[in-house]
Amino acid sequence: MSHKIITLTTDFGLKDPYAAEMKAAILGICPTATLIDITHEVAKFNIRMGAFVLASAAPYFPEGTIHVAVVDPGVGTRRRSILIETKQGFFVGPDNGLLILAAEKQGVEHVYELTNPRFMLPRVSSTFHGRDVFAPAAAHLANGVEPEKFGPEIRDVEKPEFAKVAEKAGILVGEVLHVDDFGNIITNISAETMARLVVRGWVRVELSTCKLKLKYCRTYGEVKPHEPLALIGSHDYLEVSVNQGSAAEKFGSKPGDRIAVGLPEM
Amino acid sequence: MSHKIITLTTDFGLKDPYAAEMKAAILGICPTATLIDITHEVAKFNIRMGAFVLASAAPYFPEGTIHVAVVDPGVGTRRRSILIETKQGFFVGPDNGLLILAAEKQGVEHVYELTNPRFMLPRVSSTFHGRDVFAPAAAHLANGVEPEKFGPEIRDVEKPEFAKVAEKAGILVGEVLHVDDFGNIITNISAETMARLVVRGWVRVELSTCKLKLKYCRTYGEVKPHEPLALIGSHDYLEVSVNQGSAAEKFGSKPGDRIAVGLPEM
Amino acid sequence: MSHKIITLTTDFGLKDPYAAEMKAAILGICPTATLIDITHEVAKFNIRMGAFVLASAAPYFPEGTIHVAVVDPGVGTRRRSILIETKQGFFVGPDNGLLILAAEKQGVEHVYELTNPRFMLPRVSSTFHGRDVFAPAAAHLANGVEPEKFGPEIRDVEKPEFAKVAEKAGILVGEVLHVDDFGNIITNISAETMARLVVRGWVRVELSTCKLKLKYCRTYGEVKPHEPLALIGSHDYLEVSVNQGSAAEKFGSKPGDRIAVGLPEM
Repeated sequence: MSHKIITLTTDFGLKDPYAAEMKAAILGICPTATLIDITHEVAKFNIRMGAFVLASAAPYFPEGTIHVAVVDPGVGTRRRSILIETKQGFFVGPDNGLLILAAEKQGVEHVYELTNPRFMLPRVSSTFHGRDVFAPAAAHLANGVEPEKFGPEIRDVEKPEFAKVAEKAGILVGEVLHVDDFGNIITNISAETMARLVVRGWVRVELSTCKLKLKYCRTYGEVKPHEPLALIGSHDYLEVSVNQGSAAEKFGSKPGDRIAVGLPEM
Repeated sequence: MSHKIITLTTDFGLKDPYAAEMKAAILGICPTATLIDITHEVAKFNIRMGAFVLASAAPYFPEGTIHVAVVDPGVGTRRRSILIETKQGFFVGPDNGLLILAAEKQGVEHVYELTNPRFMLPRVSSTFHGRDVFAPAAAHLANGVEPEKFGPEIRDVEKPEFAKVAEKAGILVGEVLHVDDFGNIITNISAETMARLVVRGWVRVELSTCKLKLKYCRTYGEVKPHEPLALIGSHDYLEVSVNQGSAAEKFGSKPGDRIAVGLPEM
Repeated sequence: MSHKIITLTTDFGLKDPYAAEMKAAILGICPTATLIDITHEVAKFNIRMGAFVLASAAPYFPEGTIHVAVVDPGVGTRRRSILIETKQGFFVGPDNGLLILAAEKQGVEHVYELTNPRFMLPRVSSTFHGRDVFAPAAAHLANGVEPEKFGPEIRDVEKPEFAKVAEKAGILVGEVLHVDDFGNIITNISAETMARLVVRGWVRVELSTCKLKLKYCRTYGEVKPHEPLALIGSHDYLEVSVNQGSAAEKFGSKPGDRIAVGLPEM
């Protein structure tokens, strides 16, 4: 059964019927699919946020899971529709950088362009490939259609430009990747990178609006309610948080902001 | 399996347990139903928006799907509870105009009033027929109970008053049906009606706040980001949109507003 | 099949991948579970609201349902993880008062601390027990693992302090338990308690901002649109409502506010 899980990640919101129409298209082709929403609340057209959310959630799904994602400002233009086969599962969506972060974590094996009309809805609109192209592709995959049937293999996948982490004189410089619904400021500095600093209890963090000396914790509850802290979050990236509060609000941070981290002597 | 899909469309929002209580009532009667949310974010008591969303999504579901919808300002008063059998599936909800737009698209065969207490929860509240009447009816339908068992056939279903499109001297006058979460202004002017105008590249659109000359496109990406356009959307109605932006915000439009469309000479 | 329903109630919101990661963890262990969201929109860290929502929805689910709930300001501290076995089903989550209101309604049979690492994800983070501890426990329960395998039985469960209803000289004094998405002001005064007042058509209600004489109705539609009323809501608690409007907005009420109710002579 586990190969029949299909996840959805979009910027459609929950007010409109768009996500349901994708599910309808899937169930019309593969009635036994287990449909799981990752989120439909990606900020509109924000490919970076979609890529982060998908890459966060995908590793927890069983082998063979098919992930469909739609954050698609270029729908109806010449951007390609793709299917990525990885060592763990499949990703279906637009070729605009949305899928590749999650797919590379799993090990990319093949990328196919979705060109075969046999695996699309009979009538493909110019504005809603989620329903007319991606959802049917996912459903046919779940039914056991082989990936190479969907179209030609391609090698020049679009890659998004996320900031690299720089290190200079013991200071790590990265950026804010995402602000979650709790107001946690999630950075692109991984646990692995943080391990280069020999932290003894405290770190210095420079955000765009302020400099902070923060307790480097294992969990939120190690500081008092409403006090700030730094920690490695559940996705293995450095977070700046406030216990039972919103760090993003307190410090005025937003995705894309620069962040520098060092030892208290910096 | 396809006859076991039950969809839900409500104005309950996602903060409260109301939608989950409907699902609980369904699963208690038909444990194998596949439950799909169309939306729970219909604007409170906005029957017109509920009717539009349901009519947009329903056509994409497989034959035999059972659609339950609850936007129900008259709950507990004398408004009737109904079950509509169409050529494609079933609609269950209040008799207030919410269901009929979607049902008529599929071809109405019979309408029954839900009066048989055998197919309701043992105790029916005065305020929540979604859980106590409509959800159980849908679940019993999914279990194979015949539609005529639910109550007497009726013929005088309530029909909502949505504005008709008028045509005068080559100008189409309709109204804004819905503003979606992207800010697209969706009108009640269908692709079929638009075909009466011989459009060559541009249309003139008069909204309540402004007059516009808009490129008539196949897809959003045909104009630059943040530029407005007109197009036939994925549900075959004329939309006024902004590429990667919100047309409703830019032009101050809301559902019910008048819209006039003609050729650039108008 | 009915023993395989797993519900989720959290304060994670719908923007982030957290709820989906819990579902992924569940499906990795029990691929055939039926997953039902009660809500992910509990106000952040608001254990009282989470407890109310869970206790409202749980009674409608079939016997054997497993409810997982996560409103968990103390994650990673010494608060315990627990599994409550009731006469009707199971509750899994933090030992902070979130589960006990719903569990006591069903009759608590045993409470176990979740200590057995065999039934957790291989690597347990300090910040996300929902995914790493609670979700796997629910999935293993759904697979038939016996409750006593998860850890030692305990007897000193945390109980939240919700205000009791006081009665003095024919006046009931309680508090606002919840404001739902319609703006209904839901109090902690039960239908049973209200029955002590011999109400003939009208009640007097004192909120923190105003004194009201309200029609005591069976349903919203008994007063004109936009007029206030009092009624017993679908969960058997006294509500102050406005027909087709928001009582909470009109009267400025919020959870925790005091409310006094009596006969019109009070």
